[in-house]
Amino acid sequence: MTQGIRLRRTHMVADTIRVPGGTEVVLAGWVQRRRDLGGIIFVDLRDRTGLVQLVFDRERGTPAAVMEAADHLRNEYVVAVRGEVVARAPHTVNPKIATGEIEVVVADLDVLNAAKHPPFPIEDGIDVEEPVRLRYRYLDLRRPQMQQMLRLRHQAYRFLRRFLDDHGFLEVETPILTKSTPEGARDYLVPSRLQPGSFYALPQSPQLFKQLLMVAGVERYYQIARCFRDEDLRADRQPEFTQLDIEQSFMDMDEFLHLMEEMVAGLFREVAGIEVATPFPRLPYREAMERYGSDKPDLRFELPLADVADAVRGTEFRVFQDVLARGGVIKALVAPGCAGYSRKQIDELIQFVAPFGLKGLAPVAVEEGGFRSPVAKFLGDERLRAIAERAGAQPGDLVLIGAADRQVVLPALGALRNKLGHDLGLIDTSQFRFVWITDFPLLSYDEEEGRWVAEHHPFTMPRWEDVPLLDTDPGAVRAQAYDMVLNGYEIGGGSMRIYRRDIQEKMFTALGFSREEAYDKFGFLLDAFEYGTPPHGGIAFGLDRIIMILGGGQSLRDCIAFPKTSSGADLMVGAPSPVNREQLDILRIQVRQPEPTAPKA
Amino acid sequence: MTQGIRLRRTHMVADTIRVPGGTEVVLAGWVQRRRDLGGIIFVDLRDRTGLVQLVFDRERGTPAAVMEAADHLRNEYVVAVRGEVVARAPHTVNPKIATGEIEVVVADLDVLNAAKHPPFPIEDGIDVEEPVRLRYRYLDLRRPQMQQMLRLRHQAYRFLRRFLDDHGFLEVETPILTKSTPEGARDYLVPSRLQPGSFYALPQSPQLFKQLLMVAGVERYYQIARCFRDEDLRADRQPEFTQLDIEQSFMDMDEFLHLMEEMVAGLFREVAGIEVATPFPRLPYREAMERYGSDKPDLRFELPLADVADAVRGTEFRVFQDVLARGGVIKALVAPGCAGYSRKQIDELIQFVAPFGLKGLAPVAVEEGGFRSPVAKFLGDERLRAIAERAGAQPGDLVLIGAADRQVVLPALGALRNKLGHDLGLIDTSQFRFVWITDFPLLSYDEEEGRWVAEHHPFTMPRWEDVPLLDTDPGAVRAQAYDMVLNGYEIGGGSMRIYRRDIQEKMFTALGFSREEAYDKFGFLLDAFEYGTPPHGGIAFGLDRIIMILGGGQSLRDCIAFPKTSSGADLMVGAPSPVNREQLDILRIQVRQPEPTAPKA
Repeated sequence: MTQGIRLRRTHMVADTIRVPGGTEVVLAGWVQRRRDLGGIIFVDLRDRTGLVQLVFDRERGTPAAVMEAADHLRNEYVVAVRGEVVARAPHTVNPKIATGEIEVVVADLDVLNAAKHPPFPIEDGIDVEEPVRLRYRYLDLRRPQMQQMLRLRHQAYRFLRRFLDDHGFLEVETPILTKSTPEGARDYLVPSRLQPGSFYALPQSPQLFKQLLMVAGVERYYQIARCFRDEDLRADRQPEFTQLDIEQSFMDMDEFLHLMEEMVAGLFREVAGIEVATPFPRLPYREAMERYGSDKPDLRFELPLADVADAVRGTEFRVFQDVLARGGVIKALVAPGCAGYSRKQIDELIQFVAPFGLKGLAPVAVEEGGFRSPVAKFLGDERLRAIAERAGAQPGDLVLIGAADRQVVLPALGALRNKLGHDLGLIDTSQFRFVWITDFPLLSYDEEEGRWVAEHHPFTMPRWEDVPLLDTDPGAVRAQAYDMVLNGYEIGGGSMRIYRRDIQEKMFTALGFSREEAYDKFGFLLDAFEYGTPPHGGIAFGLDRIIMILGGGQSLRDCIAFPKTSSGADLMVGAPSPVNREQLDILRIQVRQPEPTAPKA
Repeated sequence: MTQGIRLRRTHMVADTIRVPGGTEVVLAGWVQRRRDLGGIIFVDLRDRTGLVQLVFDRERGTPAAVMEAADHLRNEYVVAVRGEVVARAPHTVNPKIATGEIEVVVADLDVLNAAKHPPFPIEDGIDVEEPVRLRYRYLDLRRPQMQQMLRLRHQAYRFLRRFLDDHGFLEVETPILTKSTPEGARDYLVPSRLQPGSFYALPQSPQLFKQLLMVAGVERYYQIARCFRDEDLRADRQPEFTQLDIEQSFMDMDEFLHLMEEMVAGLFREVAGIEVATPFPRLPYREAMERYGSDKPDLRFELPLADVADAVRGTEFRVFQDVLARGGVIKALVAPGCAGYSRKQIDELIQFVAPFGLKGLAPVAVEEGGFRSPVAKFLGDERLRAIAERAGAQPGDLVLIGAADRQVVLPALGALRNKLGHDLGLIDTSQFRFVWITDFPLLSYDEEEGRWVAEHHPFTMPRWEDVPLLDTDPGAVRAQAYDMVLNGYEIGGGSMRIYRRDIQEKMFTALGFSREEAYDKFGFLLDAFEYGTPPHGGIAFGLDRIIMILGGGQSLRDCIAFPKTSSGADLMVGAPSPVNREQLDILRIQVRQPEPTAPKA
């Protein structure tokens, strides 16, 4: 093998179709494939830009020693070659690769490194278990699809930074070693060696720092920020994730939302060639819940929930009457073209909503000139007709009626709506339907804690006209909060912030904190509010998910260079891992055994 | 106070000099100063772009209610104003501010927030203890100097990213929650909840990940990466710091260093208007040590160390003879114009070198026609003349001679050289003198551990011609490593990496690792090397320090938005801090008391 670099690369593979025929190039990369056709050796060479065919042929001038070396090449060997770019004979043109009209006749070859046979082929569409891909991530990342994902993320970041730079936003870094914040998810902790018994926490978001930057007069801030949450990892969560974190002063909510729309529309246009209309529609939280059963509705299909309470009021059907009597709701959802569903198919739908607490669905099959339904005998045709009408059902459709408390029915039918959208092929996957969800409730009542808790976080500004309600009817206060939703995913969320100490204190009171507790938890922020804090607000976008959507991917793990499994493990480097006793001693911490070997006195 | 934003900002303060006289503007910002001159109120309004004078004057049309409101303004109040930009009368022009030729006559005012009197004035050159500044960092950051630092960092990042984008480098994020690495500084640890007893470590650098990205075929990578080291914090260290981390494949060292020079020269030109000549000079490590007593020499002044061993060989001066007999060195340094130094002044210099282990300095005052020196009686005029000549001393200069082991004399005189450079005003502070230090030794012998250890890290490539010496004379092996040094600071460092498993194993053997230990520590990297690893290398730049130098600052803390003290504390948010018992329980760790209350059996 060659020691060091003798042949200095002059071109990337993709450049070879842009040079005149006969140009001498030096290329470097990996052997994708090698074939020996009667003494002529063909090698597909891969670099970051693509594939090109190398030809080793005595007749066309490849020296004997180079032929000999080429004979030993295997997949994934690392090579540099010097050769001449020539047009291929018409019948050998390969339309499947970008460089398929040319080939490189090799005059010189350096084998830079050998390679063992890889555990899976370096190509897309492979059928390999994910743990194997993650363990050999450095090979997995060689696949074109993963390289494309890395490029996409790079381009997205570049666009976003330029947009924000051009609009006067300053990139500022905030600490990773910071303070454990109450009122959030679980923190990752970092023991301090210099202050034993004390801990840093990794930030769940730079929330407090970005607000303090507004107090500091930065006026417009952004950061592509790593955030951390020690949650029980669902299939598609990561313990560390990347946010585009933005905060601004002196803009009102309208102005800010328009700017963010412009940015996101620009991103989709620039990076993926997708045209997105602005302004984005806005949907108040309550309307989103009533109509789609979700605060992140997928608007690529309509299929709204219909309120059919009026149509069934006063019947003898006990289930509906009981629900209405205790203030519940009765909602209907249409499954288009499903009038012929069997009992078994309907049971599957009922089983699907069960985990949401919804105990049943009343099906009504709409047929030409009539209805079929187990509840027909209670309701009668006229009421069934009213239901079908309200639900917008046509003959051939199946109407599914859910009756229970509002907080049960809406999410259950919302999820069912999504399921039907997917299963019945109602979703136009070429569409990108953005919507702002606004007017979230500021507070919700936590039965367990027996107090009001912040829906977003305790720094969210109420609507000005609702501020007095903080004292009298906290549940009715609407927040100046907003989520950007795309195709059923929440891709960003934020709010205008409280910037006056009097309102912040009102908020803490509503949350049930004493003055002392509030100061204990957020004293530095309350202090800061007294020194001239401008009106401000911001947003954070989940970049991993945006990259996933832009790249047409299915899993966050495929959009992160070195992701962790659902148990938080990095299978490649083997993290987390046990550490030396001395490392813990120096931090003055110890691991507690799950089962003490001896009972304590 | 106004609820929300009634007056929507139309211009920034700095824009006011770019609009025609008579333009109506809405400005927003902070009250820097308020003066009442006989019923006319002048307010200096500050936003991120500067200061402008607001005039509240009944005679010029300010409504009475606005006059009344303006009367209540105090420093750091947050306001929005609508008014007309007008030229100032010539005798009232203020040349000290950029907008000094105009003022804004106010027609409308919103007080957005009030402010308490700040604990220190919001201006540069204040004399405030650093802990107070750090506690009220959100006020400290309002000062023009700090705002300028934030802008400078932003501009630097933008330039660096664009340069690297334009040169085909891909920005890739690497994990923050990763694996504890042996052979480095102390790691920050993060207990894992899902795998109790196991820990993540925060990365000291993305070293292994960036090498794995090269294995993955990314070819050119960069990241502005947060790094962490749990070291005993010296005055100017931070537990978390920011590196520009770069790695590339298929370039040799020359090509790569030239690219990095081009980038850094571009940065200085674009961000600070400083022209830097390229290519940078290169100085082998050995030469740097012999000539300047440092591997990060400040080349803004010359003042080299001179080897004067030959000039004193064979004298009867026992100190020198002993040193030479045991293989030590005798080096001289000139203190220009210091021939008249008193005994006391010379003693101070001797005390300065003492902590380096150098027990004394022999002074030789060079005078017109002769020498004054306590060692004159041992050496005689002829030898003193030879010494002065070698050291390049002129009449009026003081020559200082150090004699001891090489590893004592060189750093001691190197530090003394820096001290003299500063104290004698030899440094042209307008200069930016870059130099590459190259050819570092690959290994150094650790007496304590009784083995060779890596000078840089165990993945550094030896020079090819030195590879065989790994087996026979490890101390003589030179590394393909390089530091970029500017004005006495190491601002970047890197190396070409080992990319072949056989050489990596040789390296581990030289470090005294068994095959098993090596695999245990770095198995995933050794594995990766077998699947087609390209030749690669990289560098990491210390961005905090570069920003410090570009901004003319003195302390890293002034270049970081939210820095920590030398005990690792964030005085603003109060981190690190004690956490709830439940937080520790859930992680299955506990804090050990410093003094056990009862002795263990």
